[in-house]
Amino acid sequence: MLKIIKIGGRIIENASTLEKLALAMAAMAPKCILVHGGGSLATTLSHRLGIESQMIDGRRITDSATLDITVMAYAGLANKNVVARLLAHGVKACGISGCDMATIVAHKRVDQRIDWGFVGDIDRVDTGSIGMLLKGGIVPVISPITCSADGQLLNSNADSVAAAVASAMALEGEVELTFCLDLPGVLADVNDPQSVIERIDASTYADLKAEGKIFSGMIPKLDNAFKTLASGVSAVRITDIDHLDSGTLIVKS
Amino acid sequence: MLKIIKIGGRIIENASTLEKLALAMAAMAPKCILVHGGGSLATTLSHRLGIESQMIDGRRITDSATLDITVMAYAGLANKNVVARLLAHGVKACGISGCDMATIVAHKRVDQRIDWGFVGDIDRVDTGSIGMLLKGGIVPVISPITCSADGQLLNSNADSVAAAVASAMALEGEVELTFCLDLPGVLADVNDPQSVIERIDASTYADLKAEGKIFSGMIPKLDNAFKTLASGVSAVRITDIDHLDSGTLIVKS
Repeated sequence: MLKIIKIGGRIIENASTLEKLALAMAAMAPKCILVHGGGSLATTLSHRLGIESQMIDGRRITDSATLDITVMAYAGLANKNVVARLLAHGVKACGISGCDMATIVAHKRVDQRIDWGFVGDIDRVDTGSIGMLLKGGIVPVISPITCSADGQLLNSNADSVAAAVASAMALEGEVELTFCLDLPGVLADVNDPQSVIERIDASTYADLKAEGKIFSGMIPKLDNAFKTLASGVSAVRITDIDHLDSGTLIVKS
Repeated sequence: MLKIIKIGGRIIENASTLEKLALAMAAMAPKCILVHGGGSLATTLSHRLGIESQMIDGRRITDSATLDITVMAYAGLANKNVVARLLAHGVKACGISGCDMATIVAHKRVDQRIDWGFVGDIDRVDTGSIGMLLKGGIVPVISPITCSADGQLLNSNADSVAAAVASAMALEGEVELTFCLDLPGVLADVNDPQSVIERIDASTYADLKAEGKIFSGMIPKLDNAFKTLASGVSAVRITDIDHLDSGTLIVKS
């Protein structure tokens, strides 16, 4: 089974969580892929450069200056820092961005209401290039900088990148996608980190929603998880860096 | 024959020269490798972040903050902008840094006189990972961010990276290494850009030096070219972006 792990940028910025990640990936390697964001790195860099990042619904409006910042922060700093820590633990990691080898082709977001700038919605994933790396015993570390067919760099959402890569790779074999968040899993009681729900399927999800037990921030994540399952991914896991093997396992049925 | 092209960061910053580069690479692809620096991008970013870059003999002292800047500028901005333009011209380019797949392993420079910080001197090049890409019809675009065996990112000199990659690949087949500079070649008269010397071998080099015809800035470049030839590279070319097929060809004899 191929494991695809999605992490936020925060895990990379903290030496202790980065070390935990590297150890966990070393145990999984080489049949695994890491997809990372780098949100706060880009925000920090924007502040330092005096460029204001505009966010709408948690998504960054990406003008030309902000695109450069995301390329520097995600494809540069975040990506290479993870690669270096993985190498230190004996994982032969290759840091690529969606643009490399045209692995993830996207298009500039079309939205009548908002000009998102250089935000990229994903069109397709080339499993050939990812497969080549995996076959060579290499762990792909993927940043969400993608590219349009005509060569425009774009800033895609890292969760979407992870889901798209998982769906594409699922056409070739069994895939589990893990979203590594700040919570140990989906909680039955949002105030009790011990209340992790071990397993959710479509039927229990409907029940949990009807009972009002899923807190609102988790609903889009679960909805996306079920979409990913529908595309052929075997399971989606929601967990934190300390519980990469447990947390909540989301399955079709 | 495998062609390895080394360019400075200036070519990437200018849309017109970047376009020329992409066209030239498209004509050569897929049996070619691009190695790039990004010097002035890093300097500009340092200035904007209020961090002073200290240079000694044209080499950057790399403290921790400066290392981050070089990773952002070289592995991020410069690397992905080249990849995007190559993709636009149908070249399946993969942007990697020396650290990726541990392709270029280096060590922190040892110098009794100067603390260079995170400057990396190259130990070895793994031709396996570069060969895997080439075999897949992929053009490697390599930034000079390398990594030590224990996982420390390092800033290596892009000329040295190009020479090390060329020497390593020469063990497996014929290699020509091109240094793309601001001059159309080695000039017999430094004030006359028409005075390009077409071919230099060890014997004519000795003559030219004895006649005082080689201006001082070119001597270390030519000395390095002859070192690279000694390691098995077939020819080293010194030229500019407008004359990638001509310029000065340096050969052993």
